[in-house]
Amino acid sequence: MMKLGFAKRMSYIKASEIREILKVTEHEEVISFAGGLPAPELFPINEIDEVNRIVLREAGTKALQYTTTEGCPPLREWIAARMNERLGTAFDKDNILITHGSQQGLDLSGKVFLDEGDIVLCESPTYLAAISAFKAYGCNFIEIPTDEEGMDMGALEEVLSSTPNIKLIYVIPTFQNPTGKTWSLERRRKLAEVSSKYSVAVIEDNPYGELRFEGEHLPSVKSFDTDGNILCTGSFSKIFCPGFRIGWIAGDKDIIRKYVLVKQGTDLQCNTIAQMTIAEYLKRYDIDKHIGRIVEVYKKRRDVALRCIELYFPANIKFTHPEGGLFTWIELPEGIPAREILESCLERKIAFVPGGSFFPNGNRENTFRINYSNMPEERIEKGLKVIGEVVKEYIARLQ
Amino acid sequence: MMKLGFAKRMSYIKASEIREILKVTEHEEVISFAGGLPAPELFPINEIDEVNRIVLREAGTKALQYTTTEGCPPLREWIAARMNERLGTAFDKDNILITHGSQQGLDLSGKVFLDEGDIVLCESPTYLAAISAFKAYGCNFIEIPTDEEGMDMGALEEVLSSTPNIKLIYVIPTFQNPTGKTWSLERRRKLAEVSSKYSVAVIEDNPYGELRFEGEHLPSVKSFDTDGNILCTGSFSKIFCPGFRIGWIAGDKDIIRKYVLVKQGTDLQCNTIAQMTIAEYLKRYDIDKHIGRIVEVYKKRRDVALRCIELYFPANIKFTHPEGGLFTWIELPEGIPAREILESCLERKIAFVPGGSFFPNGNRENTFRINYSNMPEERIEKGLKVIGEVVKEYIARLQ
Repeated sequence: MMKLGFAKRMSYIKASEIREILKVTEHEEVISFAGGLPAPELFPINEIDEVNRIVLREAGTKALQYTTTEGCPPLREWIAARMNERLGTAFDKDNILITHGSQQGLDLSGKVFLDEGDIVLCESPTYLAAISAFKAYGCNFIEIPTDEEGMDMGALEEVLSSTPNIKLIYVIPTFQNPTGKTWSLERRRKLAEVSSKYSVAVIEDNPYGELRFEGEHLPSVKSFDTDGNILCTGSFSKIFCPGFRIGWIAGDKDIIRKYVLVKQGTDLQCNTIAQMTIAEYLKRYDIDKHIGRIVEVYKKRRDVALRCIELYFPANIKFTHPEGGLFTWIELPEGIPAREILESCLERKIAFVPGGSFFPNGNRENTFRINYSNMPEERIEKGLKVIGEVVKEYIARLQ
Repeated sequence: MMKLGFAKRMSYIKASEIREILKVTEHEEVISFAGGLPAPELFPINEIDEVNRIVLREAGTKALQYTTTEGCPPLREWIAARMNERLGTAFDKDNILITHGSQQGLDLSGKVFLDEGDIVLCESPTYLAAISAFKAYGCNFIEIPTDEEGMDMGALEEVLSSTPNIKLIYVIPTFQNPTGKTWSLERRRKLAEVSSKYSVAVIEDNPYGELRFEGEHLPSVKSFDTDGNILCTGSFSKIFCPGFRIGWIAGDKDIIRKYVLVKQGTDLQCNTIAQMTIAEYLKRYDIDKHIGRIVEVYKKRRDVALRCIELYFPANIKFTHPEGGLFTWIELPEGIPAREILESCLERKIAFVPGGSFFPNGNRENTFRINYSNMPEERIEKGLKVIGEVVKEYIARLQ
């Protein structure tokens, strides 16, 4: 029997390391820092139940029917207003396309912008599933060095001025995944300038921005955009619930129309009733109060996580201090492979994601990501204590 | 200001003519035969309300959280059992991936199989949004002539034996969109044979198969598959509701694993609560009874539609007699452009979809599709009477 012919991309699309680890961690006794899962005990279940019923009773046939590709107008209006208020944008509903989670915003960005062989510039490290999303369109990545304030703008300009076929700059400027870092105002402004100077599109991914524990909300890179080159993603997954799979991509109307075209052929539209349910919730409830509760819980968990890392990890590791979001990022001394640390931890029923996969071009195996949003404090402490011990043992064996 | 660089595909991705016409037909007074919309008055709203509440109460945190890419296991088990019973397949849950409507099954098929320049073979005419889905991956189409029994197998083999880079054969063998035609058993068996002989994958799209008004259910092409080359899509859109956007793709486990990989980077997973709600509905209610109600209503509407076409249209047109599904297909005399007929009809607030867009390589402008599932009988009659008059007037003007 001859073999079927698959697309070339199938030779380099790999399983997401996170999703594979998550399968291992399905057992309740495993303490998992691996996912990017929000705390389920904070989902507004009763409120969702209530607004769901209202939507079904008042507009059931509409809620269960096909709708437009663009998505439910009141939801898009809310998103535009919220972004204008929080992120300094100037959007109305026609700047917004509802997507199947912000992940689909990345996939559609690949479809709209990327031909085989094109280049995507990204932070180093960057969100692992953005790498998969873009890679499916046959692109290559150049990682731009990133410090405490964000991408190194000198390095970025150097690459932009010397490299053909750069189509996208992909960034997560607020509570970055995986590092938890936040870009300074100056870098945001500068990135907008650079994107204009070199006429290159920017995807500003922002699934965590609402979850700030300390400091002031910063304007988006988009708010400094003069040419319409910058697109922003957003999501209800972290401030409401991920099960509904409702996110968005926002940008210049001409570009959003291209995304709408592409989404038509991809999956027609997002879930109608999920969109209407969220819109109804936003009308009837105070989401800021709800976000306030999430922030309070996650802040405590972050505090515990950082304290435990300080307490139980060897002194010569580095870790970030996230001002919000879901993650902190650990850098072990050179030559200590996080994948081996993970193996020992898994034997002791503790999981996390090794950092290697967050670098599209590999290397930096001495890093890993810790998620602190999904577990109560005592489990965070217990788990980090074990990881600390395993790291110390590994270092001791080396010496 | 320089322009952003978009992907090459953006130069040939066009707006779906249907979705554009649907926008025009949003006004209530318009009689629209344009969409493929199910009858909303048949949605099981109260039952959905009930099972939704049960899911939220009994498993709310799970229903609102992330889940696996593959999808909700009980739902996949039901789908496998249903397909085995109805379509003669031999699936278990690991043969099934839940997709965002069956449309996403087509998009993912493009991603898994197609490189730029590859060839897709299809019926002539074929489903318009399948053309968009595949085209996004840069393929070309060869239309295979199709008669009352399905694709012409001689013509198919001729093309297969003489053309390189054929990656997919795309077919809708039951109540085809747009023609409403159903393939004979013999052609189904033969297509499986041909797909094995030439080692080419087949996508057997089947969103309407459950809606049979007369005659016996036929086994799927897949049921004759000896090599695992055939993939089947399915959907809850036409037997439950489209607003949930829940469909599936089924096939050989090795190939489905490739689809799972690709879906991870595309949008992570489908809506969790929608999957659990459907699974709970299937456990508590008799979906066959529900489908029976849909079939009864659509059969009456088909009967009225066919009777009116016979009554009000000129004698020298051709139309199909669908044994199920949502559509009938009209062929006007050569040289009568359906797009011009549509323009006159729109002035009289009647809409349908001209047939040209269902031919990936164009031509055949003297055809159009009529959907009969979405309107009560008196509106069907009123609308078809007008279309008949417009066609007769056009012909009279020509002579």
